[in-house]
Amino acid sequence: MGKQWSGRFKEETSDFVESFTESISFDKRLWYYDLMGSKAHAKMLAKTGIISKTDLTEILRGLDEISDEIEKGLFRFRRSMEDIHMNIEVALIEKIGDLGKKLHTARSRNDQIALDIRLFMRDEIKFLLRLLKKLTKVLLKRASSNIDTIMPGYTHLQRAQPVTMAHHLTAYVEMFLRDMERFEDCLKRTDSLPLGACALAGTTFATDRAYVAKLLGFQRISENSMDAVSDRDFIIEFISNASITMMHLSRLAEELVLWSSEEFSFIEISDSFTTGSSIMPQKKNPDVAELVRGKTGRVYGSLITVLTIMKALPLTYNRDMQEDKEPLFNALDTLKGSLTIFTEMLPKIRFNKKRMHKTAHSGFSLATDLAEYLVKKGTPFREAHKITGEIVKYCIDSRKELSDIDISEYNRFSPVIETDLYDYITIEKSLRNKKSRGSASPDEIKKQIERLKKIVIKGKS
Amino acid sequence: MGKQWSGRFKEETSDFVESFTESISFDKRLWYYDLMGSKAHAKMLAKTGIISKTDLTEILRGLDEISDEIEKGLFRFRRSMEDIHMNIEVALIEKIGDLGKKLHTARSRNDQIALDIRLFMRDEIKFLLRLLKKLTKVLLKRASSNIDTIMPGYTHLQRAQPVTMAHHLTAYVEMFLRDMERFEDCLKRTDSLPLGACALAGTTFATDRAYVAKLLGFQRISENSMDAVSDRDFIIEFISNASITMMHLSRLAEELVLWSSEEFSFIEISDSFTTGSSIMPQKKNPDVAELVRGKTGRVYGSLITVLTIMKALPLTYNRDMQEDKEPLFNALDTLKGSLTIFTEMLPKIRFNKKRMHKTAHSGFSLATDLAEYLVKKGTPFREAHKITGEIVKYCIDSRKELSDIDISEYNRFSPVIETDLYDYITIEKSLRNKKSRGSASPDEIKKQIERLKKIVIKGKS
Amino acid sequence: MGKQWSGRFKEETSDFVESFTESISFDKRLWYYDLMGSKAHAKMLAKTGIISKTDLTEILRGLDEISDEIEKGLFRFRRSMEDIHMNIEVALIEKIGDLGKKLHTARSRNDQIALDIRLFMRDEIKFLLRLLKKLTKVLLKRASSNIDTIMPGYTHLQRAQPVTMAHHLTAYVEMFLRDMERFEDCLKRTDSLPLGACALAGTTFATDRAYVAKLLGFQRISENSMDAVSDRDFIIEFISNASITMMHLSRLAEELVLWSSEEFSFIEISDSFTTGSSIMPQKKNPDVAELVRGKTGRVYGSLITVLTIMKALPLTYNRDMQEDKEPLFNALDTLKGSLTIFTEMLPKIRFNKKRMHKTAHSGFSLATDLAEYLVKKGTPFREAHKITGEIVKYCIDSRKELSDIDISEYNRFSPVIETDLYDYITIEKSLRNKKSRGSASPDEIKKQIERLKKIVIKGKS
Amino acid sequence: MGKQWSGRFKEETSDFVESFTESISFDKRLWYYDLMGSKAHAKMLAKTGIISKTDLTEILRGLDEISDEIEKGLFRFRRSMEDIHMNIEVALIEKIGDLGKKLHTARSRNDQIALDIRLFMRDEIKFLLRLLKKLTKVLLKRASSNIDTIMPGYTHLQRAQPVTMAHHLTAYVEMFLRDMERFEDCLKRTDSLPLGACALAGTTFATDRAYVAKLLGFQRISENSMDAVSDRDFIIEFISNASITMMHLSRLAEELVLWSSEEFSFIEISDSFTTGSSIMPQKKNPDVAELVRGKTGRVYGSLITVLTIMKALPLTYNRDMQEDKEPLFNALDTLKGSLTIFTEMLPKIRFNKKRMHKTAHSGFSLATDLAEYLVKKGTPFREAHKITGEIVKYCIDSRKELSDIDISEYNRFSPVIETDLYDYITIEKSLRNKKSRGSASPDEIKKQIERLKKIVIKGKS
Repeated sequence: MGKQWSGRFKEETSDFVESFTESISFDKRLWYYDLMGSKAHAKMLAKTGIISKTDLTEILRGLDEISDEIEKGLFRFRRSMEDIHMNIEVALIEKIGDLGKKLHTARSRNDQIALDIRLFMRDEIKFLLRLLKKLTKVLLKRASSNIDTIMPGYTHLQRAQPVTMAHHLTAYVEMFLRDMERFEDCLKRTDSLPLGACALAGTTFATDRAYVAKLLGFQRISENSMDAVSDRDFIIEFISNASITMMHLSRLAEELVLWSSEEFSFIEISDSFTTGSSIMPQKKNPDVAELVRGKTGRVYGSLITVLTIMKALPLTYNRDMQEDKEPLFNALDTLKGSLTIFTEMLPKIRFNKKRMHKTAHSGFSLATDLAEYLVKKGTPFREAHKITGEIVKYCIDSRKELSDIDISEYNRFSPVIETDLYDYITIEKSLRNKKSRGSASPDEIKKQIERLKKIVIKGKS
Repeated sequence: MGKQWSGRFKEETSDFVESFTESISFDKRLWYYDLMGSKAHAKMLAKTGIISKTDLTEILRGLDEISDEIEKGLFRFRRSMEDIHMNIEVALIEKIGDLGKKLHTARSRNDQIALDIRLFMRDEIKFLLRLLKKLTKVLLKRASSNIDTIMPGYTHLQRAQPVTMAHHLTAYVEMFLRDMERFEDCLKRTDSLPLGACALAGTTFATDRAYVAKLLGFQRISENSMDAVSDRDFIIEFISNASITMMHLSRLAEELVLWSSEEFSFIEISDSFTTGSSIMPQKKNPDVAELVRGKTGRVYGSLITVLTIMKALPLTYNRDMQEDKEPLFNALDTLKGSLTIFTEMLPKIRFNKKRMHKTAHSGFSLATDLAEYLVKKGTPFREAHKITGEIVKYCIDSRKELSDIDISEYNRFSPVIETDLYDYITIEKSLRNKKSRGSASPDEIKKQIERLKKIVIKGKS
Repeated sequence: MGKQWSGRFKEETSDFVESFTESISFDKRLWYYDLMGSKAHAKMLAKTGIISKTDLTEILRGLDEISDEIEKGLFRFRRSMEDIHMNIEVALIEKIGDLGKKLHTARSRNDQIALDIRLFMRDEIKFLLRLLKKLTKVLLKRASSNIDTIMPGYTHLQRAQPVTMAHHLTAYVEMFLRDMERFEDCLKRTDSLPLGACALAGTTFATDRAYVAKLLGFQRISENSMDAVSDRDFIIEFISNASITMMHLSRLAEELVLWSSEEFSFIEISDSFTTGSSIMPQKKNPDVAELVRGKTGRVYGSLITVLTIMKALPLTYNRDMQEDKEPLFNALDTLKGSLTIFTEMLPKIRFNKKRMHKTAHSGFSLATDLAEYLVKKGTPFREAHKITGEIVKYCIDSRKELSDIDISEYNRFSPVIETDLYDYITIEKSLRNKKSRGSASPDEIKKQIERLKKIVIKGKS
Repeated sequence: MGKQWSGRFKEETSDFVESFTESISFDKRLWYYDLMGSKAHAKMLAKTGIISKTDLTEILRGLDEISDEIEKGLFRFRRSMEDIHMNIEVALIEKIGDLGKKLHTARSRNDQIALDIRLFMRDEIKFLLRLLKKLTKVLLKRASSNIDTIMPGYTHLQRAQPVTMAHHLTAYVEMFLRDMERFEDCLKRTDSLPLGACALAGTTFATDRAYVAKLLGFQRISENSMDAVSDRDFIIEFISNASITMMHLSRLAEELVLWSSEEFSFIEISDSFTTGSSIMPQKKNPDVAELVRGKTGRVYGSLITVLTIMKALPLTYNRDMQEDKEPLFNALDTLKGSLTIFTEMLPKIRFNKKRMHKTAHSGFSLATDLAEYLVKKGTPFREAHKITGEIVKYCIDSRKELSDIDISEYNRFSPVIETDLYDYITIEKSLRNKKSRGSASPDEIKKQIERLKKIVIKGKS
């Protein structure tokens, strides 16, 4: 009988140690950046005379060949070579002979891996910024065409005051714009050259780190060589930012799940983003939203993983740090996938406007407007607040709506109420009456959408 | 130029949704248990007359064929079939025709996945118990042959009192025995049959859950059908236990790293478990210990992942729960690998007894013995404590060791000190003088090792 | 202008160090157990002849006086004495003079603090078991009177099949019973005597640890002295268990929030457990449920706190461990408060039976029953599943319910359908038809409640 | 017998609900900012004509009186008033009568609490920036006077290459400068006005949010009212930054603990920052470093707490959010205390230069320099690497140091070695030979210190 727990635990000891310590199975993902870094390094070695021009030509040719092979799927990654750096260096030597042995001059795997991750992350963060931009655009588009789509606004999941779908969706745009800002800030600190730090102490070769930085387009140099090889802040900062973005997505996901329920019935998600049940064809499980909500845990977990790894590690490089990559990739891929699928799904959601409008009506959601009316007529706010409470209670007891009560009845509670009140207590008026910046008023939301569109369009990414 | 972030994010929408929601890429690992569960289910259906005996024969034959194909690597897992359950059910129907369509009677994927994980975990926990047993045996073996290997005992990483390597290693045995107990307790709650709960509400078929439980060897039945499909406690409890065990390993790993440093030089780890440097052949990086220490983060992270997923999920099954498996597998594999490699490595560590003995001597590590001597001569403890402090200070000022001071000098500090003191202030005597249960005394440690051996041997696993 | 960040950061250096390192501000909570431990220790010292009988009498008298003073609020805790142990020992010496200096013979603050927390936790876990018992009793009581209260059962927050409130509530009883089991298991490992380990290596005094264990009612002894002072497993295990219980409470809390919404309107929580709004008297915010849901974060955070503290700490005691107490207290108090308030609140919830019954009806929630009917008439399950899908689609298109369709129409989809079908497709029948153990059938639930009552009543606590 | 778990759990139900839901016990810490916000709000109400000038005068007078009373400790905070906002508003009404009831016009506790925390955090972050600046100054000062203090540089806690204490300490300066940058970035997003969002939807009053922002010195306005009341990103971002800073401190703390051990003996921490043992006066426990290392767990835990709270919360305000403050305060106070105590302690550490210099010598730490020498003489790096390995092996076998080997012996391994080699293989020369930017070379470190000093001094804070 085939027990499942066998497998790698049956290997020979030395094999097992190799498989326990190797990183090629996951760091091969960095191959593109490892080659990019090696080319820049070789160019610098030639520029500073550490290797010759012809050495350089050969090395570049060899690296290009390797690049080509990997892209075509012809390169054989060997576990016995441990990591991406050795796999490529050994292949280079096999290709161009002893010349290849010069490439590793004035560098070490400690600064090399730091370089690879930073190059990788720099591209990935830029890609994420593009994904976030796309998502905000979709949200803004949907907001633009739902400026008058009335819905209840909630606190404590209790209907509180009427708002619009545009108002609601642009709240998420604000969140994702903050996320973009955070990723841009994180990019500044990621975009720094560690190469040249060597093992930990620098080198006796007169290298030119500024030149390498220029070749690779780095805005900064990680100056202190001991810090350069032991710094993983940018990974933690990245996963922390990713956690916040996932938290935002989880809030939207929760709302999509709620709104898809028969109880809310605010939206219908297109078939292609739900799983049905062949037995109950009307049933549409909001699986994508649920999965995104669940995947939040994965990113939070990755954050704790790297924070735990780095806690109390003495300088400089320690092998524990090899464990930084898998949680990073996990968090990154989760975030990319979640952003992409939400961007695809949001345009395919149908809003049930009638239903939302109807629910926005119920529940005395205009009581606040009545109170504000009283204040405008000279009643101190706390007093107005109290009177409104009494009126609503009266409505409930007599099974009426605010709009059903006539002025004489109103005057029993407050003499200041006049017929102009009725201009305050319909949902449409309530929304239009809103005056404050950023409020639920459709006019205000229009302005907000214009502002947000400008920010999104002029955004760097 | 080949950007790295392309790949799956370029798929067609429907493809992308499929790849975002599928679980076959990771739950295929459960194939063995999915088949085991299906067989038991089919037998129950036949026993209760829901299907016929011949139906059963055919279904079992089909399932066995599938089992065979998977074991031989001939089975084609299809992403379009989403998960392990559908992959197998569809293959069964392809093999035995319409009869195969009867297998899913009176069950649902909700109770089926809960069953698969529980069957899997039951085996895995038992395997872990075996790994823990092996590790404790190795520790006990090394302890047995190091009962007289003196070393400094530390508090605050300051040498405090002499102990022995046997004392030190058996402290870890205690930890791993507690871990075993925790895994056994967790096993009780894992070993419970969820099948028969169906989607969430049970079924109108007169199924026989007790019979299925018996067939599959379950000690308990998850009675309430709503709870049965939404309970993931056993996964959290398991990862929490794994976190504690990894914490224990991280403490031992930290000590191995410290002891391998030139500063401590207490141990030498065999070449096969270190990475050398061809440039500095004397250098041996304790990579395995470092990696295990780092991998602790991975297990802590998995714990937070599942706790986050389950937070505030309404009953019963929600798709978020699909996210439970990858952190579980991650934590499990990490723990298995770490236990295995430590079990392999520990016998390959050479203790530098001379060095440890020498360091145990220094630092007035017998001051406590002197204080206890004074108490035995009638001095109240706090007083004895104070006098000892003064004597040690005198030693430091006059650059002497406690054993260098003669009785007349001692009497300046306390009249009760006599020549029998010298029997107290050598390390060997200090250790032998220890009287209390569980103390550093070699005699006591011998007893402890005997006790521990009995526990380990009679252990269930 | 009074900046807020001043305060303790303006103290004199030595004062600041004192306030940074002290623990009396939080460990004074352990005073009762510190005294209990000291008394047992003193008795053991007398029994073994290390101190005299008269010494013992005096020491016990002094400790009782201190106990009295603390209970009456007359004891002055001094920060300069650092912790609870020194505060009490110094007070003792002030009270009974030099005799008091003997109490600390053959022990250390390292084993003393471990003792105090274990004694404290032992009582607290027992108290928690009582709280959990009370909560399960309340749930069972509410379940007992709601065996026929029909409601929709959900998967993916979509109505799936009808269940009853009793079924739903007993699912939580199962969870809390598992929690109790986990706390009982944790109690076994908490209930172990560390005292006698002294600083880390035991003592040269012939102490009697078994006697102390007996006096304090410990079931086990933490044998290895190095392990005894550096083990905090029981704290982590406790907070992990607390995290799972809080997760369960957060699920129930989420449901209470959902059910309180106007959209669900399943329940009304009594005024005393909600906050109203004087402006909208009909509004009832389910604050208590929200707070409990939020407080889950606090307990998860405490778990990560202690796991982080213990990661990679070399043996034996390190000052980092002082940081274990505040997260422990935080998690404990949060759990106790949350359990208590739910126990108080649950009886004060009114179920809106009519509303729940009505929603249970809608949504073709009986489609599964139709499919099972077809299977019973000889259709293979997957086939039955497909046919049912077609029927439901037909219903939707022709705006009918399953019960509106006549047999001739049904026969267009399957010839096996006869009039006995109508016995399957009313909610009440559907529930009663359920046959499987643990299913939604009222008869089955009655049995389950009886079983659960027995467990709860015979429960140890 | 006084069980410890009694206390608050014995209160009357309503009392217990009050104590479970109140926040005044911790949010009173925000009183200063609550008053500041109320004053600005009142001024805006007067400016826009919502209240009169005389109303304003009275309100400001009342608020000033309250401010005065709180500062003098005369204000009575009442739990029955729930939170800081109601405590102050009620006190205002008691003081100035009905006029006080106007203050809450056009605002809500939802936007008010968001304002209070932001005002508080803005000050606290600025204060933290000052603490970080102080710490970097201390580090730079100690670095400046230790440019020639040679010590071993480590990878894997194995001596790798010689560096200097200045090099080592400036690595931490780099970390803390990144931390400052992160806090400054976080400050941008904290420094945003939420007031004016009211409950969630804005108001019908023509308020002037820009004016309030100007009065309170906010750089931004939280535009969208729904977002403004439900955004807690800045708290998570802050605690995440705090976690990274604590991680840095934990690394330094770990090194201080290591360096204080007898095995390393690199440093001696002043008595005032260690706890001694009166029994072993030579013993100095590095308690402060240990506590800071342990307190890292507290901040990581707080991060998980708030991330968990916010996960999947639907818009807008939910009571769960009340739980954000205690973890925030906990993380903040921990970080402030830890930074302060390290700033105080670092100048009080004595470096044992002789010891460090001696250890830097051992272990063939110059092997890399030999390899680089070979490369400079034309040997390809991998070749040089291999030859060096052989030479070191020869040294070990013949018990010699690199400097003991004469040229003829060297030439057996490589013909290119000449007497100029000896200029490469002393520690001092090795350091001085380093050419690369950011390397261990004292000249380079001098430049780095100058650069860092300029950054620290011109730093905004």
